[in-house]
Amino acid sequence: MPTIVVDVMPKAELLDPQGKAVAGALTRLGVDRFSGVRIGKRFELTVEGEVDDEVLATARRIAAEVLSNDVIEDVVGVEVVE
Amino acid sequence: MPTIVVDVMPKAELLDPQGKAVAGALTRLGVDRFSGVRIGKRFELTVEGEVDDEVLATARRIAAEVLSNDVIEDVVGVEVVE
Repeated sequence: MPTIVVDVMPKAELLDPQGKAVAGALTRLGVDRFSGVRIGKRFELTVEGEVDDEVLATARRIAAEVLSNDVIEDVVGVEVVE
Repeated sequence: MPTIVVDVMPKAELLDPQGKAVAGALTRLGVDRFSGVRIGKRFELTVEGEVDDEVLATARRIAAEVLSNDVIEDVVGVEVVE
């Protein structure tokens, strides 16, 4: 069945303490090639039936209204996979 | 600066209570085009300098060893963006 992937990330101007903790852990492990880590969410929505414009519009709407909090997060992607 | 995105999802055979809760909320909101929701994580690693094979190999290694728990999660993507 087709799947729509919605990616949500913390807004760039906000601190991301979880990401900071991972970045700190990487440094302690001797991994120094990454200067920052940010952690967001990936939603996989299984579509019942075919993906048409209406389903995509619905996915975009729920991405903005249900799956993310627009005070602190941005929807960075809504795409159909397979 | 280039970014490597690592996507981690709960293993298909495991329950995803958070995803189930979102799927239930969508149904209650009258959205019925999606038969399932699963929620994973999206990591954005900012790369210091250029992305070469070594950095990619390091990203794949930390994706498997640090960013995911292979008992309950799968790394579903490691890719360079921008």
